[in-house]
Amino acid sequence: MEVTNKYIVIKHHIEDAPNDSHFEVKNEAFGLSINSGSDDVIVKNLYISIDPYLINRMKSYSASHNAISFSTPLTPGQAIDAIAIGKVVASGNVKFVKDDLVMGVFTWGFSGLTAYGGFFEICKPQKGEKVFVSAASGSVGNIVGQYAKLLGCYVVGCAGSQKKVGLLKEKLGFDDAFNYKEETDLNSTLKRYFPDGIDIYFDNVGGEMLEAAIINMKAFGRVAVCGIISEYTDAEKRASPNMLNIVYKRITIRGFLAADFMNIFADFSAKTSDYVRNGQLQVIEDKSLGVESIPSAFVGLFNGDNVGKKVVVLAGE
Amino acid sequence: MEVTNKYIVIKHHIEDAPNDSHFEVKNEAFGLSINSGSDDVIVKNLYISIDPYLINRMKSYSASHNAISFSTPLTPGQAIDAIAIGKVVASGNVKFVKDDLVMGVFTWGFSGLTAYGGFFEICKPQKGEKVFVSAASGSVGNIVGQYAKLLGCYVVGCAGSQKKVGLLKEKLGFDDAFNYKEETDLNSTLKRYFPDGIDIYFDNVGGEMLEAAIINMKAFGRVAVCGIISEYTDAEKRASPNMLNIVYKRITIRGFLAADFMNIFADFSAKTSDYVRNGQLQVIEDKSLGVESIPSAFVGLFNGDNVGKKVVVLAGE
Repeated sequence: MEVTNKYIVIKHHIEDAPNDSHFEVKNEAFGLSINSGSDDVIVKNLYISIDPYLINRMKSYSASHNAISFSTPLTPGQAIDAIAIGKVVASGNVKFVKDDLVMGVFTWGFSGLTAYGGFFEICKPQKGEKVFVSAASGSVGNIVGQYAKLLGCYVVGCAGSQKKVGLLKEKLGFDDAFNYKEETDLNSTLKRYFPDGIDIYFDNVGGEMLEAAIINMKAFGRVAVCGIISEYTDAEKRASPNMLNIVYKRITIRGFLAADFMNIFADFSAKTSDYVRNGQLQVIEDKSLGVESIPSAFVGLFNGDNVGKKVVVLAGE
Repeated sequence: MEVTNKYIVIKHHIEDAPNDSHFEVKNEAFGLSINSGSDDVIVKNLYISIDPYLINRMKSYSASHNAISFSTPLTPGQAIDAIAIGKVVASGNVKFVKDDLVMGVFTWGFSGLTAYGGFFEICKPQKGEKVFVSAASGSVGNIVGQYAKLLGCYVVGCAGSQKKVGLLKEKLGFDDAFNYKEETDLNSTLKRYFPDGIDIYFDNVGGEMLEAAIINMKAFGRVAVCGIISEYTDAEKRASPNMLNIVYKRITIRGFLAADFMNIFADFSAKTSDYVRNGQLQVIEDKSLGVESIPSAFVGLFNGDNVGKKVVVLAGE
């Protein structure tokens, strides 16, 4: 049996902010039979994860530069791969049977593990410490804030709308939150929310927010750099953190990727599942429908459209 | 008995590059008798340590800003304190007798401990790793490079003259060294010396060199920020490290102060004394004579005049 498979490509490398016209939906004919003797599995994708890091794979820089080479560069015209959850429709493999639910292998962008590993392994938090999270209503930030509250930290988040600020304070239990778009001087803003300084800054945005956070860090403060979405789409935009502060306050700034935490995946998964089951951790999903909605779902990440984890639902289970 | 004591003051806060006219030598009458019942000690200073960090105590910023408040700000007209070695000339204290050699308490600028703690505790080096040291002929850098060689690392240093480069390669055993003033593109320069990338960058200068090093770091590379002398005297000068590299290569940048390593002072002192006695570690001192030479010795630090540790000799033992 043959079906038509839809997929998304970039028309050319993307150097600044992405928009819908950069993408194209393509079709290919696809056979649903398994060659005898192969251990192939055919999977129908149900849910696809939409993550900002993909923008870095779409840059010509990525294709030419070894700095991020382990993150496979995307070629214009080539199907874009990403994390997905799917259902097995046909299997020649003894490990899988029809109707099994499976998850794609690109787990290094998996928001929960990014939040768990980044917060616990990189930030090494202590109960009572003061934690600041940027892009706090985003897929990673909202979970970092909730883990921090579960540990007994004081947590302030920032986001880009009053609606998101409300979600953080009312639904997710953040101690406080603010809309960075309403602030004119981020340094003063952070001083207001952290009069005694910040122990941990979980950075999802880079740029001016990173600079302001460095000024407000306490001695021995830790900055985990998870992403720098404000810099992804503007090559000219660069944080210039005050290095004098970094020396005198003995600040650690550390980049990381979820891929580095596969060794604690079981621990992450067990604890987080328990939290979710017990109602101690809220899962915030922002769903769009259909493969055609992938480009606009992706573009929306850079406009702050999503609240929580952005997922495209491709098919019902 | 009364003597005349000379000391150095700043005439006003110093905001950019220091020069001799910023300083003044003052005199005060000083009694050499100990009040009975006190446990005072009177010390004759023999050697005084000249360190770049003092510039940060001379800024008006320092007086007004809590970021570096633990580093006591200097007030114009006030005697400048620093690390010194002296001899006890009179003692009312049971712990000291006349002619004891003593060292001042401001040990946090002590070059050897800075090098030892910064390299071993912050960089966590492994035998065979590739180490880059900036300001490598300076008081801290030259010792970091020597420790790194003793551990079995590959070490490249940069300095500001051919004479210094020669010292690093011929006397101190660096694997290679270059004069940064002769290089036009530091990124390419570092690629030439580290074709496979840098594991550890021991940063004494900040600015463009830090940016170039970040680009050339290997995955899981560590940057210890000991000082940023290129930024101390120019408030506009700021490193803008590529944060995308920091995330994707999981780089750690960490500031530190020698004061944090007092718990390993005994270990540092024992090992380093052994190395020096056995001729495995060279001590490079750059001496000036007399209290009046302090301002120009200090100003010279920012012009790259010193080779090794800058010391002013105040009196013979």
